Amino acid sequence: MKLFIEPQQQEWDNILKRPTIDLSSIQNVVTTIVEDVKTNGDLAIKKYTQQFDGVLIDELAVTQQEMDIACAQIDEELKTAIAVAKENIWKFHSTQKESIIKIETSTGVLCWRESIAIEKVGLYIPGGIAPLFSTLLMLGIPALIAGCKEIIVCTPPDKLGNIHPAILYVANILGIKKIFKLGGVQAIAAMAFGTKSIPKVHKIFGPGNQYVTVAKQLINSKGVAIDMPAGPSEVAIYADDTCVPKFVAADLLSQAEHGVDSQVVLVARTNQIVEEIKDCLQEQIKLLPRKDIAQQALQNSLAIVIIDANKAFDLLNEYAPEHLIISSDAAEQLAEKIVNAGSVFLGNYSPESAGDYASGTNHTLPTNGFANAYSGVSLDSFYKKITFQKINKTGLKNIGKTVEVMAEHEGLQAHKNAISIRLQEIDNNEI
Amino acid sequence: MKLFIEPQQQEWDNILKRPTIDLSSIQNVVTTIVEDVKTNGDLAIKKYTQQFDGVLIDELAVTQQEMDIACAQIDEELKTAIAVAKENIWKFHSTQKESIIKIETSTGVLCWRESIAIEKVGLYIPGGIAPLFSTLLMLGIPALIAGCKEIIVCTPPDKLGNIHPAILYVANILGIKKIFKLGGVQAIAAMAFGTKSIPKVHKIFGPGNQYVTVAKQLINSKGVAIDMPAGPSEVAIYADDTCVPKFVAADLLSQAEHGVDSQVVLVARTNQIVEEIKDCLQEQIKLLPRKDIAQQALQNSLAIVIIDANKAFDLLNEYAPEHLIISSDAAEQLAEKIVNAGSVFLGNYSPESAGDYASGTNHTLPTNGFANAYSGVSLDSFYKKITFQKINKTGLKNIGKTVEVMAEHEGLQAHKNAISIRLQEIDNNEI
Repeated sequence: MKLFIEPQQQEWDNILKRPTIDLSSIQNVVTTIVEDVKTNGDLAIKKYTQQFDGVLIDELAVTQQEMDIACAQIDEELKTAIAVAKENIWKFHSTQKESIIKIETSTGVLCWRESIAIEKVGLYIPGGIAPLFSTLLMLGIPALIAGCKEIIVCTPPDKLGNIHPAILYVANILGIKKIFKLGGVQAIAAMAFGTKSIPKVHKIFGPGNQYVTVAKQLINSKGVAIDMPAGPSEVAIYADDTCVPKFVAADLLSQAEHGVDSQVVLVARTNQIVEEIKDCLQEQIKLLPRKDIAQQALQNSLAIVIIDANKAFDLLNEYAPEHLIISSDAAEQLAEKIVNAGSVFLGNYSPESAGDYASGTNHTLPTNGFANAYSGVSLDSFYKKITFQKINKTGLKNIGKTVEVMAEHEGLQAHKNAISIRLQEIDNNEI
Repeated sequence: MKLFIEPQQQEWDNILKRPTIDLSSIQNVVTTIVEDVKTNGDLAIKKYTQQFDGVLIDELAVTQQEMDIACAQIDEELKTAIAVAKENIWKFHSTQKESIIKIETSTGVLCWRESIAIEKVGLYIPGGIAPLFSTLLMLGIPALIAGCKEIIVCTPPDKLGNIHPAILYVANILGIKKIFKLGGVQAIAAMAFGTKSIPKVHKIFGPGNQYVTVAKQLINSKGVAIDMPAGPSEVAIYADDTCVPKFVAADLLSQAEHGVDSQVVLVARTNQIVEEIKDCLQEQIKLLPRKDIAQQALQNSLAIVIIDANKAFDLLNEYAPEHLIISSDAAEQLAEKIVNAGSVFLGNYSPESAGDYASGTNHTLPTNGFANAYSGVSLDSFYKKITFQKINKTGLKNIGKTVEVMAEHEGLQAHKNAISIRLQEIDNNEI
């Protein structure tokens, strides 16, 4: 870890700078695949699946039989775990439902907003070594609560043409029927434009590698919505004298094991705390199966000592971390200083991994400093919020003049006329 | 208007197709300006202001003196109108505040979500012939309710280096102090990267021409949030036998006058209704100052006759209009069929222009079919919604096993360890 002690505020920007990943080199490859899928549909996606996943898939849709076989492979322990996680995620996201509030802004002018589910959504679940069945829970549950009519899942097959059974099991308990053996850029393009096998959707969710990220950006610029821009996963931890160093070390490692590009930032009140945590890191890292990855990620990570809590949180807000753990007995008071973060974990018994899987909050969060303007995935992400207004004659008389005057000053006479012609009619009827 | 009578569902896609606007030709120009502003700051923005707005601006920030002079120019009628609009917009957007709901998903696992204002926002207000001071109300008010700390406004100067007084007046009554005489691509780039004069912001809002649209897309791909993708303004009107044809005609014209690329769609129950509306259009258009624009826009517009209301709304949902007016006495029942729309106007006395200015709803809405996945600007647009969790020892014992099992199955041992090390500690202390 690179150590900084009481850095000056003007240095923060530089210290906190995330590595800029130049995606322009893969832009052309991605554009070619997207265009090919748009033009040639199923033919193209099968070709790329053979090329990149090493398997020729005849039938892209997972069959009920495959689903049944997969579900039979899941042991009871995992089934129970998934059931608990599902229940908590469901409970938490259900609290995000909005009731309709109708307000009469002027007498006779009734306005309100309704949350209406996005009809068709596509969930992308990466495959490979780590089958992210937890991400299917995180995306599928709010889609179901919102009431999206068509929910499709794309996830890459292994070399035998199979999907990891835990992903199919989760799809099954959520009642999601349309699972396709399709990954990478070709999956994003297929969901964006539709093919014979893959339905076109209105919004695409889910994490992925750099190719998937660029593909999502590309189709977004062509008018298909996406959940959010993506970057490598991150955690920042604030630790004061009441932290438990071995817990902090375990939390730092849980982020570092994600990938060599994982971002890990420790902000501690004193250098002694940093030293204690470092000792624990040394000890714990040895035992990790992914210790090489974690080691590399830690080399690029930061330890920053700031004694003043206000200043420390100013720095953390400038960094705008995806995950922020406050390892302190005073976590709740300190949390009031937070302005920018994706998800916040308070106190010594709230590790990030609880939120990654089972506490109920969503784990699809803004990275790369986007937490200064973006929120994580929530029930909102699966809705459009449509405004409605119902104005009666009294209402139009109350605000008509206002509209006429403003429209005229903006030089929009026909806007004014739409009011005047109605006010005239009301006048005529009243005489 | 192009007339279609009971078109087959498979033809809808083709009939409803919006003109694709190829922005690639202006991409290079925009990229050059954005890069120049990023590198050369104030020097570049002043250069482009001279080039495009025809005026050399020494001091970009509007002074208090300029503000005072502008405010003195506003007549009482307009002041009153703006006051009414402000009050209604403020009332409606205030209803969108969310209270914090804390939920114990498992015993000892407390989760909640807080809305925290985006710290720095930039509002772009186009100038030119139509000074859109109403847009400053629509963007400034929710920014103020949310509590954004820094709100800046960029709007292009006229050839004398002045801003339209109505824009300054609105800024003044909203208490927005940082107004800059800056428009076009150079304004978007300056707000995205910051210059000596213009503060860097986290999110940029507001409409603009094609250059502004492309600039917003470009800086969005570089990590600065924007309100939404933009396209030409649109209205769709559903009219049945209870509509008032002259009102419908006035509403169609109020959209058509926006620009020759405005999209206007009339869906009527019978051809007779269409004919009656057409007659009214003929009559009303003659009197419009912008009749040439409206005439051209109408030439590209659609009139579609569908007798079955369900089918008509299926078509309207497929079109996903920015504005949807239901010109019918049964508007409220018909509204239940709506899935995709930006803002909906119910009944014969709810013209779009009411919502454009003064009813209280926002007029910054998704165009170009984006209403199938995007919402209009609302209070939400100015917040990040940050999730929090506070787990105590009991809570961790309740969900710890779940996290351990799931993390292990995803091959993330360090995620598991972050739980195990804490459960171990709890066990040790309990013995």
